[in-house]
Order: sequence, then C-alpha cells, then structure tokens
Amino acid sequence: MLNDNARRLQEVNDTLVKMSELVGTAISLATQALLNDDLSLAEQVMSGDDELNGLNADVEGLCFKISTLQAPMARDLRMVIGAIRMASSLERMGDLAVHIAKQVRLRYPNPSVPKELIVTFAEMGEAASNIVEEIGQVIATGDPALASKIAEYDDVLDRLHRELFIAVLAPTWAHGVEAAIDVTLLSRYFERFGDHAVTVAKRITHIAVGPTFSE
Amino acid sequence: MLNDNARRLQEVNDTLVKMSELVGTAISLATQALLNDDLSLAEQVMSGDDELNGLNADVEGLCFKISTLQAPMARDLRMVIGAIRMASSLERMGDLAVHIAKQVRLRYPNPSVPKELIVTFAEMGEAASNIVEEIGQVIATGDPALASKIAEYDDVLDRLHRELFIAVLAPTWAHGVEAAIDVTLLSRYFERFGDHAVTVAKRITHIAVGPTFSE
Repeated sequence: MLNDNARRLQEVNDTLVKMSELVGTAISLATQALLNDDLSLAEQVMSGDDELNGLNADVEGLCFKISTLQAPMARDLRMVIGAIRMASSLERMGDLAVHIAKQVRLRYPNPSVPKELIVTFAEMGEAASNIVEEIGQVIATGDPALASKIAEYDDVLDRLHRELFIAVLAPTWAHGVEAAIDVTLLSRYFERFGDHAVTVAKRITHIAVGPTFSE
Repeated sequence: MLNDNARRLQEVNDTLVKMSELVGTAISLATQALLNDDLSLAEQVMSGDDELNGLNADVEGLCFKISTLQAPMARDLRMVIGAIRMASSLERMGDLAVHIAKQVRLRYPNPSVPKELIVTFAEMGEAASNIVEEIGQVIATGDPALASKIAEYDDVLDRLHRELFIAVLAPTWAHGVEAAIDVTLLSRYFERFGDHAVTVAKRITHIAVGPTFSE
C-alpha cells in the first residue's frame, strides 16, 4: 500500500505540473488574443478551461484515495493538503485567463486595449507567463529556493497594475469610461494571477520545510 | 481515537461556522462603512481580518491532525477535504470585505459611492449579508436543502452587478472615470463574494450526498 501511495503522490505532483503547463498556455494565448484582438485564440482559451477544471477534480480524487488507503505521514500529508490548495489556485489562474479571453470576445472586432497601453499589457503577459513557468518548476522539483523569482515577477505585475491605474486616471486619458473600466479589470486579472502564483509558491515552501501552524 | 476524531470533526465544523459569522460581521460593517463613509468601521473590518486568517489555518491544522491519527472514512474524509476548501473560500470572502473597506479608506473623507447608487449598494450589502448567514446555517446543519436560497441571493448580486455596469456606462454618468472604476471594482467585490458562497454551498452538498469525481 505504501508503494501505491508513493505512486499516487507522484501522480498528484505530475497533475499539478500538468495544470501549471495548461495555465501557462492559457495565459500566453489570452495575452496574444488581447494584444492582437484575436477571437479564435480567445475561444481556444475558453474551451481549454474544462481540462483544467477536470485536473483540479482529479487532484482531489487522488488525495482522497491516498488518505483512504493509509493515513499518510507528516510530509506526505502536507503534500496532500497542499495539493488540494494548489490545485484550487491553479484552477483559479485558469479562470483569470478565461476572464481576459472573454473580454476580448466582448469587444471583438474592436480592440480591447488602447494602442498606447499595448506595451504595458505585453509586459504583464510576459510576467504572468514567466511566473507560471516558475511555478511549474517549483512544483516539479519541490525546491522552494526557486520560489524567490516568483515574488520578483509578482512585483512586476503589481507595478504594471499601478501604472495602468495612473494611465486611465490621467487627464490625458482620451478613451472614456468604458475603456477605463476594461483596462482596470484586465489589469486586475493579471495582478490576481500573480497573487495566486505567490500562494502556490508559499505552499511549496510549507510542504518542504514544515508547517507554520501548530499540529 | 475515533472519539478524538469525531470531536475534532465537530471542532472543524464549529470553526467554519465561526468563520462564516466573522465574514458576516465583516461584510455588514464594510457595507455600512461604504454607505456612510465611515472610516472607523472600515478600519474595524481591516483589523478583524487576522482572526479569519487564523481560523483558516486552524481548520487546516485540525484536518491535518484528523488525518494523522487515523485514516478517516468516506464521509469524514469528504468533510476534511471539503473543510480545507470551504475555509479558503470563507477567508477569501473576508478579504473581499477588506477590499471594500480599503476603498472607503482610500476615498475618505469623500464618499466612495455617488448618491444615486447608494440604494443599489445597500441592496448588494443586504444580499451579501443574507448569503453568508445562509452559509453559516448550511454548514451548521450540513443540510444541503438550505443551500437553494444561496443561489437566489447570488442571482440578486449578479443582477445588481449588471445594473451598476449599465449605470456607469450610461451617457448620464456624471462622475468621471475614477468614480466609474471605484463603482466597478466595489461591485465586483460583492459579486465575487457571492460566487464564493455558492462554492461553499456546493461543497456542503458534495459532503452530504457524495462525490462527483471518481474515487
């Protein structure tokens, strides 16, 4: 049974890595869709989300099986509980990519982002893609040392988010209320994406080095 | 050991009920702060959030102990895994109340919401308070039949969210870009609050009637 559980824990880990890959694809396509007003890419992001939701349920099912067969020991149990939380975060990151894609569809064939902000959103998309690539590596290796870069990319997202706020509130803003709201929400989706990545990174640290709560 | 775990499962449930009470207080105070531009209430919401975060960690610690002592049986295990997810959702609902409170602080002593939208936000606050009260009862009783009202209140929140979008995009909107963004974000916080409540209600159904994923 021990071997069964060791195998299942590996499967949980592989599923989380697979989720991070799918999230990476989703946020990269969503960004391209946003920058190029590409409806077909946006729809690809939306239709791809089911697979992520399915993998989230798979992680929970595997963790359920692991806990039924044998009470796992400390580190394994931290992995089981942590995996449930991380799968939630990754699934939510996929949802945020879908929110971006839906915004593209809503405004199509008009552009979702004014020209002068394209560069800022391209940078956000790059930071978001980088952050989820790091997440995949951190999960695959279980090495929290790799997690430090995640905070850096998150700082980039937070800075760009503030810059976009300043841009839409500037007296020079010439695109009206609707575009201002679009930009604010889009920017918030990227910023929340980064927050979830940070949550996942913290969880990997927690699994590797032990709990911060009393047990 | 069985008795220990039965006692701990009850403690998990009690903690989740306590969390829903604190979330109820938080969203109610945040709404009052918003409607009356009351900085002191807003600060109360912010300082109260630590307790919620602590209870979220407590739920995880209890679930950890339960799983260490003895592999729980099917329904208990669904409760353990479900409790971890529900505690996350409740903690996030508390964060959303804090976001509303921070918005009040940001604009203080100016009003956060234009006068003509006060009634709409009052309705949102009422629906949000109602939804979290139902959540507390559903968790306390474990009765998914009570969960049906939650979907109704969530529909109210979604409808009001759409109404606010229409209001800020109307040609009659006279409050500029900044106020439009404020209203949009505030409205989104209430709407997301409802989404999380729906997630909790679904989880209670899952615990009571069994899994939808293969096990």
